Amino acid sequence: MLINCVAYRDGRKLADIDVEDISRYVGQPDCFVWVALRDASDAELAKMQEEFGLHDLAVEDARHGHQRPKVEEYGDTLFVVLHTVELDAIDRMQVGEVHAFVGPNFVLTVRNRSHQSLLGVRERAEREPHLLRHGAGFVLYALMDAIVDRYFPFIDAMESELEAIEERIFEHGAARANIQRLYGLKQRIMVIKHAVTPLLESAGKLWSGRVPAVCEDNREYFRDVYDHLIRINGTLDGLRDTIGTAIQVNLSMVTIEESETTKRLAAWAGIFAVATAFAGVWGMNFEHMPELKWAYGYPLALGLIGATCGLLYWRFRRSGWL
Amino acid sequence: MLINCVAYRDGRKLADIDVEDISRYVGQPDCFVWVALRDASDAELAKMQEEFGLHDLAVEDARHGHQRPKVEEYGDTLFVVLHTVELDAIDRMQVGEVHAFVGPNFVLTVRNRSHQSLLGVRERAEREPHLLRHGAGFVLYALMDAIVDRYFPFIDAMESELEAIEERIFEHGAARANIQRLYGLKQRIMVIKHAVTPLLESAGKLWSGRVPAVCEDNREYFRDVYDHLIRINGTLDGLRDTIGTAIQVNLSMVTIEESETTKRLAAWAGIFAVATAFAGVWGMNFEHMPELKWAYGYPLALGLIGATCGLLYWRFRRSGWL
Amino acid sequence: MLINCVAYRDGRKLADIDVEDISRYVGQPDCFVWVALRDASDAELAKMQEEFGLHDLAVEDARHGHQRPKVEEYGDTLFVVLHTVELDAIDRMQVGEVHAFVGPNFVLTVRNRSHQSLLGVRERAEREPHLLRHGAGFVLYALMDAIVDRYFPFIDAMESELEAIEERIFEHGAARANIQRLYGLKQRIMVIKHAVTPLLESAGKLWSGRVPAVCEDNREYFRDVYDHLIRINGTLDGLRDTIGTAIQVNLSMVTIEESETTKRLAAWAGIFAVATAFAGVWGMNFEHMPELKWAYGYPLALGLIGATCGLLYWRFRRSGWL
Amino acid sequence: MLINCVAYRDGRKLADIDVEDISRYVGQPDCFVWVALRDASDAELAKMQEEFGLHDLAVEDARHGHQRPKVEEYGDTLFVVLHTVELDAIDRMQVGEVHAFVGPNFVLTVRNRSHQSLLGVRERAEREPHLLRHGAGFVLYALMDAIVDRYFPFIDAMESELEAIEERIFEHGAARANIQRLYGLKQRIMVIKHAVTPLLESAGKLWSGRVPAVCEDNREYFRDVYDHLIRINGTLDGLRDTIGTAIQVNLSMVTIEESETTKRLAAWAGIFAVATAFAGVWGMNFEHMPELKWAYGYPLALGLIGATCGLLYWRFRRSGWL
Amino acid sequence: MLINCVAYRDGRKLADIDVEDISRYVGQPDCFVWVALRDASDAELAKMQEEFGLHDLAVEDARHGHQRPKVEEYGDTLFVVLHTVELDAIDRMQVGEVHAFVGPNFVLTVRNRSHQSLLGVRERAEREPHLLRHGAGFVLYALMDAIVDRYFPFIDAMESELEAIEERIFEHGAARANIQRLYGLKQRIMVIKHAVTPLLESAGKLWSGRVPAVCEDNREYFRDVYDHLIRINGTLDGLRDTIGTAIQVNLSMVTIEESETTKRLAAWAGIFAVATAFAGVWGMNFEHMPELKWAYGYPLALGLIGATCGLLYWRFRRSGWL
Repeated sequence: MLINCVAYRDGRKLADIDVEDISRYVGQPDCFVWVALRDASDAELAKMQEEFGLHDLAVEDARHGHQRPKVEEYGDTLFVVLHTVELDAIDRMQVGEVHAFVGPNFVLTVRNRSHQSLLGVRERAEREPHLLRHGAGFVLYALMDAIVDRYFPFIDAMESELEAIEERIFEHGAARANIQRLYGLKQRIMVIKHAVTPLLESAGKLWSGRVPAVCEDNREYFRDVYDHLIRINGTLDGLRDTIGTAIQVNLSMVTIEESETTKRLAAWAGIFAVATAFAGVWGMNFEHMPELKWAYGYPLALGLIGATCGLLYWRFRRSGWL
Repeated sequence: MLINCVAYRDGRKLADIDVEDISRYVGQPDCFVWVALRDASDAELAKMQEEFGLHDLAVEDARHGHQRPKVEEYGDTLFVVLHTVELDAIDRMQVGEVHAFVGPNFVLTVRNRSHQSLLGVRERAEREPHLLRHGAGFVLYALMDAIVDRYFPFIDAMESELEAIEERIFEHGAARANIQRLYGLKQRIMVIKHAVTPLLESAGKLWSGRVPAVCEDNREYFRDVYDHLIRINGTLDGLRDTIGTAIQVNLSMVTIEESETTKRLAAWAGIFAVATAFAGVWGMNFEHMPELKWAYGYPLALGLIGATCGLLYWRFRRSGWL
Repeated sequence: MLINCVAYRDGRKLADIDVEDISRYVGQPDCFVWVALRDASDAELAKMQEEFGLHDLAVEDARHGHQRPKVEEYGDTLFVVLHTVELDAIDRMQVGEVHAFVGPNFVLTVRNRSHQSLLGVRERAEREPHLLRHGAGFVLYALMDAIVDRYFPFIDAMESELEAIEERIFEHGAARANIQRLYGLKQRIMVIKHAVTPLLESAGKLWSGRVPAVCEDNREYFRDVYDHLIRINGTLDGLRDTIGTAIQVNLSMVTIEESETTKRLAAWAGIFAVATAFAGVWGMNFEHMPELKWAYGYPLALGLIGATCGLLYWRFRRSGWL
Repeated sequence: MLINCVAYRDGRKLADIDVEDISRYVGQPDCFVWVALRDASDAELAKMQEEFGLHDLAVEDARHGHQRPKVEEYGDTLFVVLHTVELDAIDRMQVGEVHAFVGPNFVLTVRNRSHQSLLGVRERAEREPHLLRHGAGFVLYALMDAIVDRYFPFIDAMESELEAIEERIFEHGAARANIQRLYGLKQRIMVIKHAVTPLLESAGKLWSGRVPAVCEDNREYFRDVYDHLIRINGTLDGLRDTIGTAIQVNLSMVTIEESETTKRLAAWAGIFAVATAFAGVWGMNFEHMPELKWAYGYPLALGLIGATCGLLYWRFRRSGWL
Repeated sequence: MLINCVAYRDGRKLADIDVEDISRYVGQPDCFVWVALRDASDAELAKMQEEFGLHDLAVEDARHGHQRPKVEEYGDTLFVVLHTVELDAIDRMQVGEVHAFVGPNFVLTVRNRSHQSLLGVRERAEREPHLLRHGAGFVLYALMDAIVDRYFPFIDAMESELEAIEERIFEHGAARANIQRLYGLKQRIMVIKHAVTPLLESAGKLWSGRVPAVCEDNREYFRDVYDHLIRINGTLDGLRDTIGTAIQVNLSMVTIEESETTKRLAAWAGIFAVATAFAGVWGMNFEHMPELKWAYGYPLALGLIGATCGLLYWRFRRSGWL
């Protein structure tokens, strides 16, 4: 579905143009055309391939979707795949894709399986004509910057979640809930990680070493995007590392708690076993058991049982078993 | 066993030719010959070595089989080893091998221990003469692309399997089954990993840096294969990482469950130990135990025992032990 | 908030100058201006951007804060982000930031969310005019050196803490406390790690390979800072590795202790179960139980019970269960 | 101990020569001398050092032995250390060493602490004069190839062992045996790993990048050795990874089994505790316990006890505890 | 404290000289001066800095001590930090430091916190004037070689210790001792690791790539040191890896043993619970319990209890619980 198709000259919008007129503007020296599609059909892609002379393999990737994030050069055209991350109605993370074809005087973006509009990117770019004058490369930067910026709230949410778990990690009885939350957190981290890590490698090529011509003028801007990705990646690695330790610690806590339960069980079992053994002895049917005939035999026996149990209780208490 | 032997000119099939005529076609400038063998005998390999002038070491590797995936240059000829993965009758993964010798104007493929035909590769290539015109290099691409594409269903199946396990990972009593499935999954991942990782390194040399002459014209195609391999490899690494965490989490769950069982055991043991201790006391044979003579002594005793047990039950319940 | 603004010539302080006069001094060949801000407002940053011609992206980073440590070149100006670490009132680690813009003849430092003054850096630099003569690059060195030196007390404290934990790691009953302390230590290490590791990579670029012009004369000084960072980083990695092992060992110790508790429980339970079983036998109501009528039946029975229990006790003791 | 000392010309054996005559043959252009020693004495090494002009440090390494595998260049002479692995009388792995000094027209091999003869290498080389014509470099290849080939049976044995363990890993009661076998396997892997990994790095230098002159003509052969080493190394890494997971899984299985035992114990303890408690109640000595006087009181009581225990048994059974 | 101060010419000792005369000898072309200090005071270091023109930063490092091992170039002077390891009176490892300043015609060594003399290095060097002729670089080699050689006994001791632990790792009841020894071993490994790993990186720069002028003539010697360090490092990594596995295995063994204890406990508890339940039944006070009146009721009852317990014992025995 075509969202819009605009021609620019010297960083300023010329006009919304018709798809058929693209080739007319693309040919002019200071112009560039920026086309935005959404969930593009095969026909639309074929049309665009023809207009912009896109490479078969890149178009095929765009058609199939489910690509990993990457930046590929086909001659003087870049093919860029970005992952968008958003929450669906029941707060699960959904991964969408944005494909961008960036040539010397055109940008084609295709948004797939994502509800978040990219119109804001265009608006922001049009507000800064002195930057938009840098051409298609700057549009790519603006796009990448916008998408990467949308990862940060997820990172922040995950850091808060981890902190919330950490506060409960040494609590009694929270082990099951903690481990579930840690595992869920790990899963969400992997989603962002799959969006960020491959892009990180590719983004590095847009500002250091041999840089594609179309990005040449915007090196510092791409380094800024790269820096954001490095930051996200570092945070994700830190989170993963901490989750690993937290799972280990959680296991230790469960084992410690079980150990404490075992001790308490042992203590009470001991106390009652002693009482039962004493009672069993005086329940024997020997004829000659003189204490059975004492007037105060019974209270003495009860007292002795009570005292022994009390002594045991006190000793277990002191040694921390109870 | 010879499957077929075809000469091509300018990307179009000339004719099925006889093995004896190979040298006649190989000598012509725009021609190339594509020979396909299956589970080749030593004699067939020796014949081919003579026809195409293959290197001793490469032929020896092909004869022995059980090579790891690799791309080796012998002069202007490439020797490529690929692993095929398929399911046998009882759904176990079987690894086969495809060896390809690719020279400036010939391709020789040998398929070993694999039931999946490569005829589709030839058909697809013949349908696109404008691409097949790129010669032997393009045939190699088509072959690699076809084999790598066959890994994807396995990857998808493994991702589904992991998701299925994850859904049951926090379930009671599923620990044994989970751990068995996780271990089985890990084993299958290793099979694909052994096919993919070494190939990944080698495939990189077919499109970046100094590229063998025969692949020069098809760089972008090999980059596409490389990109698929990177994607598979990334997914496999993600799966492994998740399996590692899942095994750890599973161990935690077992320990948590055991801890819960221990607590429940402790609770019931406590309740019955109390009842037994009380009964033991009134079972003692002292002569002067006044309560034994009370008219309502017995029901009172039963009531006291019942009440104490009830109280314990209620407290264990409240603290989550029961 | 402006802390101070000073012009230097040939390594010696000329005068405290007004912000408005900056451009006058910056233009002179042997002069440089060193401005220090604290928690700078947007207006102050805008003013500085104008005076020194700073790049939009760098200023934006300074405005937003929460950057990772880094060194970025914008033309002949460096933008450096450093993390400060200090303890707050209740001894928790707080991370602040210092941003430095370093040009051929100016240094602008902005301190954010940090209570520790950097005045000492200026004083030390002014005391050594023969070094300060190296210009803005030397100021950057002095700044980095001062901030990195402040990490060492934290490292030392963490090493002492780990040693203290290690002394108690094989103690009975210390497992819960140990695991809590180890986890807390791990968290603190991560804070320093986030300050050090990214800086390490960046600092390497200030002395080896292509070095920014402004640092050229001070290579050996930056190598010294780099060497400190390498040392801290190595220590942190060692600490992390040891903590990982310590957590594992702690888990083993808990399991060993639980095992010992289980054995002791088993032993005592066995002894009392034997006593109870004997007593139960003589408590049976059979009519023909001759030993019940013996004159010394009771003491004999008690003796037998006592002897059996004693024998068990001795055997458990010998096998280390008690 | 001198094994043999042979002069070759143009890939063909000239004669068994005397150690004293070595220098006469080494001086001739197309000749090379191949000397084989075994557990060489210091005097023999000194003699050889003199004949071939070997470097002090290399000879010292050969004298001391216990070197790690390596390839070192001293001028135009290579010093190569290889590890041999063989089984002793009681099937334990024994590591021996082969030191090779390879110059432009000589090869000196010294075999230490190894019972496996290297005569086969010489025989095979002499059978292929067209290859042996490549000189000392080809002899080095033949030696490395032979020694590396001897690692494969160990690898195969270890893979079979791991498969055998994997088949029993989910079996009841096999945990102790499994963990012992896994640990033993890990130890054996480390032995091969120490032989292979350092050699892998060194062997890479014999075919890629700047290659020592003596190996120049045999690049493709050394690449073949390198490829074997890569394969072994990959297999070893796979084995280690799997062993790590298997140990983890084994621990999980032990914990699961313990959990099942605990449950069964809890169930039976519960059943008998109930019976004992009931019997205890009717063993009390209250005067007014009407059911004690019933004609069918005893069978009713037995029936009630039996029914309760039966009910418990059935419930435990249903919930999988028994 | 000055140990000695000697001038050399052409590899031979000229004379013990006075510190004041150093500059006179340093100026002569074929001479070099070798000064050895121990726990040098600030004044001594200042004196040496003046005599040899040492860099401020290097001298400051030497003054502060507690440096990590490293090799730094200051102009044509090398500053080398080495760690010595020795045992103190109660067999704990103590780390000392040796700092060496190596210029074109001088060597200054400062030994700190170490009791082991370096005189042997000087003696050995003076015995080989043909090597000492290589000048200051050779002295550095001799120093590094001597210090690195002193690591080997520690490595050997640690390997023996690990073997001793491994022999007991599957023994009953050794878990606590094993884990303590493993942890202690890990700590000692880290000490050596901190001495070796940083030095390894630095030592590589003394023989490969751009080598400092002063080491140029001794490349092969430094490669030898490097090779020793690689060997130590590899052994340490192997030890660490094995310790990690051993700790894991130890945990498994503890869990297995606990599981066996639990089973044995369950078995005995079951046997006595059965005896107690039977006795309890015949201890009930029902009036109509015909077997109580049988002449052989008591021995029959005892026999039945004994037989049941015996049967249980036999079954538990058979299933390996006892």
